Amino acid sequence: VWRADLYKEGAMTDEEEIRGLLQDWFASSRSKDLDGLMRGIAPEITSYEHDAPLQYVGRDAVREVCRAGLDASDEVDWDIPDLEVIVRGDIAVTWGLNRMRGKASDGRSFELWSRGTRIFQKRDGRWAMIHQHVSFPYDPASGLAQTELSP
Amino acid sequence: VWRADLYKEGAMTDEEEIRGLLQDWFASSRSKDLDGLMRGIAPEITSYEHDAPLQYVGRDAVREVCRAGLDASDEVDWDIPDLEVIVRGDIAVTWGLNRMRGKASDGRSFELWSRGTRIFQKRDGRWAMIHQHVSFPYDPASGLAQTELSP
Repeated sequence: VWRADLYKEGAMTDEEEIRGLLQDWFASSRSKDLDGLMRGIAPEITSYEHDAPLQYVGRDAVREVCRAGLDASDEVDWDIPDLEVIVRGDIAVTWGLNRMRGKASDGRSFELWSRGTRIFQKRDGRWAMIHQHVSFPYDPASGLAQTELSP
Repeated sequence: VWRADLYKEGAMTDEEEIRGLLQDWFASSRSKDLDGLMRGIAPEITSYEHDAPLQYVGRDAVREVCRAGLDASDEVDWDIPDLEVIVRGDIAVTWGLNRMRGKASDGRSFELWSRGTRIFQKRDGRWAMIHQHVSFPYDPASGLAQTELSP
């Protein structure tokens, strides 16, 4: 069941709708459904992604990042075990650590943790992500992004 | 003038109060006023900082990060030239690129750009930051955080 379809029934709270949208994205990643990942992305989104450059503006730019992410691994799955959600009117805020697991193109299994902060706006009864910030922290001494950390 | 003191007069909108709080932090950084930087930080803040680990929880942990930041350079100044602010009720959301400039301990001038997303809650008439996310993007090929980028 595509959880977004439940929105119409009015049976979900705003927080449940936001959590449902993220569940939809986790499922779309597992099935490598790029169009599914793009549902709920606002046209004018400003996204601070794991990879350079500093920012990606607009849904088309974010689509290319997502496409590259799906292409980079044989299997990919992610979730946010401890997700904070705050809703006020038509704006929702979430943050939590992203747990990304899967198999790389060379067959090796991986588990990566990063940080994620996401802002949504409700428009015509549907939530759309207007801002995203995902990142790894770094070690100033080595200059290396720290992709091997876990909470 | 400490802008936060203007809040009492009720002459500022919520958005002006948020922008004023950030201006206060910029000024506190210039004057290396650690206590000033801590004004407007919620006790239970979860902060995703530039540096590892993945997250810092609580004002005391954030204070140590700020202290290290002030100690790391002879002169430091920062601002957010293009700051987005959204307020709904007692919650405010901001994002924008942080421009950090100054002189390192070895006397060299630097200018660094990073990404920043910040969430505030108004409590007893004062805004407090409850979540912060600042980061550099990275280059997956080299593993290096990209600290030399500008918009």
